[in-house]
Amino acid sequence: MKKFINTAETMVAESVEGFVRAHEEFVVFGVDRKFIRRRHMVPGKVAIISGGGAGHEPMHIGFVGRGMLDAACVGHIFTSPTPSQITSAIEEADTGAGCLLVVKNYDGDVMNFEMAAEIASSRHKIETVIVGDDIETAGTGDRRGRRGVAGTLIVEKLLGAAAERGMTLAELKNLGDGLAPRIRSMGVALTGVAVPHTQRTTFALGPSEMEMGVGIHGEPGHSREPFSDADTIVRHLSETVFNDIARTAGKALLFVNGLGGTPPAELYLAYNTAHRFMVNYGLRIERSLVGTYATSLDMQGLSVTLAFLSDEEFSLWDSPVATGALRWGC
Amino acid sequence: MKKFINTAETMVAESVEGFVRAHEEFVVFGVDRKFIRRRHMVPGKVAIISGGGAGHEPMHIGFVGRGMLDAACVGHIFTSPTPSQITSAIEEADTGAGCLLVVKNYDGDVMNFEMAAEIASSRHKIETVIVGDDIETAGTGDRRGRRGVAGTLIVEKLLGAAAERGMTLAELKNLGDGLAPRIRSMGVALTGVAVPHTQRTTFALGPSEMEMGVGIHGEPGHSREPFSDADTIVRHLSETVFNDIARTAGKALLFVNGLGGTPPAELYLAYNTAHRFMVNYGLRIERSLVGTYATSLDMQGLSVTLAFLSDEEFSLWDSPVATGALRWGC
Repeated sequence: MKKFINTAETMVAESVEGFVRAHEEFVVFGVDRKFIRRRHMVPGKVAIISGGGAGHEPMHIGFVGRGMLDAACVGHIFTSPTPSQITSAIEEADTGAGCLLVVKNYDGDVMNFEMAAEIASSRHKIETVIVGDDIETAGTGDRRGRRGVAGTLIVEKLLGAAAERGMTLAELKNLGDGLAPRIRSMGVALTGVAVPHTQRTTFALGPSEMEMGVGIHGEPGHSREPFSDADTIVRHLSETVFNDIARTAGKALLFVNGLGGTPPAELYLAYNTAHRFMVNYGLRIERSLVGTYATSLDMQGLSVTLAFLSDEEFSLWDSPVATGALRWGC
Repeated sequence: MKKFINTAETMVAESVEGFVRAHEEFVVFGVDRKFIRRRHMVPGKVAIISGGGAGHEPMHIGFVGRGMLDAACVGHIFTSPTPSQITSAIEEADTGAGCLLVVKNYDGDVMNFEMAAEIASSRHKIETVIVGDDIETAGTGDRRGRRGVAGTLIVEKLLGAAAERGMTLAELKNLGDGLAPRIRSMGVALTGVAVPHTQRTTFALGPSEMEMGVGIHGEPGHSREPFSDADTIVRHLSETVFNDIARTAGKALLFVNGLGGTPPAELYLAYNTAHRFMVNYGLRIERSLVGTYATSLDMQGLSVTLAFLSDEEFSLWDSPVATGALRWGC
């Protein structure tokens, strides 16, 4: 387990500090370093706030900036930020129009964001959008349903752009909830990951094995299968995602996400395969995203995300964004 | 050796095809798929052409687009493109103002680009800039000197922006050559890499070893050392780079590059450390870049690049760029 860290205790703080230093044109630390926020807040705009455990970088800190998130709270590795971090972010980010919390569907995250929303609700208008884009069959033994994985990026991009255009809190909540059935993701892992604090590998795979249906917290997926070629793997991911999604239109965004240890060349190869399958299913792929955006530490693996968007939503996707990890139009 | 590929023979073609599909707003294939080029050429602008072996993605295909490269030629894994690929790129990309070839300093690349330049020289004005940003001590047993590694990105960004502003071929050649002593890089590997065609790992490292001074072709570095913490590793890289560079000003660009298998969180942590060292040396870090841009297949590792730039060169760095891998200002 060789990683570029100093100590397990300081790795998150040092990594987030490095991120802030590298992108100081976009972001600053909030009070007591409890969260990071946009350098330039926009008075009267609804604040979009997200967060989650560390180990998923660049998600969510890499999405803070113009056209996307106003603040992001980072917990310990694979551990929700505390309610205190979240309430501090709400206090600093709310410029009068209220806050929309975007929360990945995991017990800890949902609980702590709920608690923070309750605490802050006397002084702030707050709505919450829960993201659960993972495919149904990726059982985690968690009765709370689909996990929030790479598709969270799409929800945050669209909501961030809509907030920038002046959408109200109620309209944003409506937009976010409406996206839920139209975004689906599925991941595969070629390796487990070791959480530095525990030095334990969350699951171990042999040289000829892969884990299908993984999330982004090192938890096992829904089946262990013999390792295969990219076409076989990506066909499985693409078919499952395609069959699980609510197909409302023929136009889609296709997103291949690296889980941390997979190089760009392999992600592009996987995108090529996923694109071919989706076109064979009769879809028109209007937009693409390929890269390492929602990670599970240094896991070798990737996920395929499909999103059916309306023309208006594609226009939100295309809107200017200037963050550490996603940038176009400005 | 688990990778997302179908066959060793088709992996490069499939990956490049995936890249083109994902970024069709910027790029198209050139004649016979011998290279990729900007979708929209600019008549009268000097064409900037680069290329090299595959396995370094997103370099160079990810740098093709407005404000950077006009065309990029991709060879087999770690193998130079052929002179025929390069001459085809020259023919298609030259819109009348000539071509500048940006070549990483490796025997095969230098030879094939030279040969292509000679063949094309009867009909095209051609100049060449050789990039050798690697530190001096990173001996490869190659008497031809410093290797071209991650710093190539900086040279290509500045030349691309300058060409877009209308600089002539002679001026661009002068700008590129002048950058040489002011850009230095050094890399470290935590793992070797296996080239799929040969199934051979280029070098093997034990669980407590690392390889200092590696390039991006899987070749061994200049010393094998015990694996250590990030501060120790990055101090070594930073000091060596700092001592090897021509220090012409106090303002620098600091670039931490992932070699393929290292996740963003670790790169940001390494950036934090490198930034601290550089500031302690009295430098002002004016710009930063952190990400996976010049890879050595799926190698776990990273490199630190330092570049001293003039105000005019910083303004070229900031100029709009719209490519698959680097995008801002448009």
